[in-house]
Amino acid sequence: MAQYHVPPLERLVEKFESLPGIGHKSAQRLAYHVLDMTAAEAKSFADAITQAHETIHMCSLCCNLTDGELCPVCRSDTRDRSLICVVEEPKDVFAIERAGDYCGLYHVLHGAISPLSGIGPDQLKIKELLARIDDSVEEVIMATNPTVEGEATAMYLSRLLKPLGVKVTRLAYGIPVGGDLEYADEVTLQRAMEGRQEL
Amino acid sequence: MAQYHVPPLERLVEKFESLPGIGHKSAQRLAYHVLDMTAAEAKSFADAITQAHETIHMCSLCCNLTDGELCPVCRSDTRDRSLICVVEEPKDVFAIERAGDYCGLYHVLHGAISPLSGIGPDQLKIKELLARIDDSVEEVIMATNPTVEGEATAMYLSRLLKPLGVKVTRLAYGIPVGGDLEYADEVTLQRAMEGRQEL
Repeated sequence: MAQYHVPPLERLVEKFESLPGIGHKSAQRLAYHVLDMTAAEAKSFADAITQAHETIHMCSLCCNLTDGELCPVCRSDTRDRSLICVVEEPKDVFAIERAGDYCGLYHVLHGAISPLSGIGPDQLKIKELLARIDDSVEEVIMATNPTVEGEATAMYLSRLLKPLGVKVTRLAYGIPVGGDLEYADEVTLQRAMEGRQEL
Repeated sequence: MAQYHVPPLERLVEKFESLPGIGHKSAQRLAYHVLDMTAAEAKSFADAITQAHETIHMCSLCCNLTDGELCPVCRSDTRDRSLICVVEEPKDVFAIERAGDYCGLYHVLHGAISPLSGIGPDQLKIKELLARIDDSVEEVIMATNPTVEGEATAMYLSRLLKPLGVKVTRLAYGIPVGGDLEYADEVTLQRAMEGRQEL
């Protein structure tokens, strides 16, 4: 693009390139695709971005993303309110909802404790979680990621929660269903062996 | 996502999913990334889309995309005006400019003749190309894609142009047959430019 500059196009390419997983060539392709849209389509795309940003905020109870005061799960009267499943990110809620089995509530921490990235307990929605614990809550399930950070966060929270008289559990570790034993890593296999259950 | 619906988020995911090469999971990831942006960043992203769409139009001479009356190449006084390189799409101009060797002008057809897709000569910027041919133009280089459609378009144009007393050449087959000009590497494009032959 030695001497060929079209600033609005370059700006759009840059914006796409700043998104995760999008390289320069893909960003160009997306920008051209936007130029090929009708004016109405382009406007509706731009509006979807600003509207999502303006209307979506945290549920006042579980800190998940929602466009209402409470999120659909907290609003629902068919969910088991004695169960709280603690996850790191809103997308983890979607993943568990997709699985379809879980019928309790959630709590979204918006991250995990990570001293290396400078994220301490104060930056997470831990205060909000502790405020929810009362006699009606029987069990808190730690569904943070199976990483060093997720593990540390689960340990930290369980030490805070147990004195409040609530049962704290952790998602089971093991070999993924449909996976191949041959490709499972050593730690996962060790955990799967430790957590073996009687048939 | 059985009972979990956040309409503005779903709308944004749908918009991303409608872009080329973006599946559902990637669209979700991009949507979450947009929600993680600051309000100013999200607005600037949305503005880049609408502004690119509003300000970019065709160069009145070569039909390439530009935000001015003429595109930077047609505006430049260092380009060789006796040479016109005919390409299918604006992104092909970027590809040739990236190779850096070519110093003439361009003409963007905005497609190729393709009876199967119902695209005939009238839908392409052929009238505009013919209107540019006068005594000052010595050579027209066909740089349409090395596909059946691009080849047919080059043949069609050469039959229209030769009677006007202009030399018509075709990019050499340094470019891989069946490929796409956009993805050709710089060296291949330079070789193809050097080896161009009269039609």
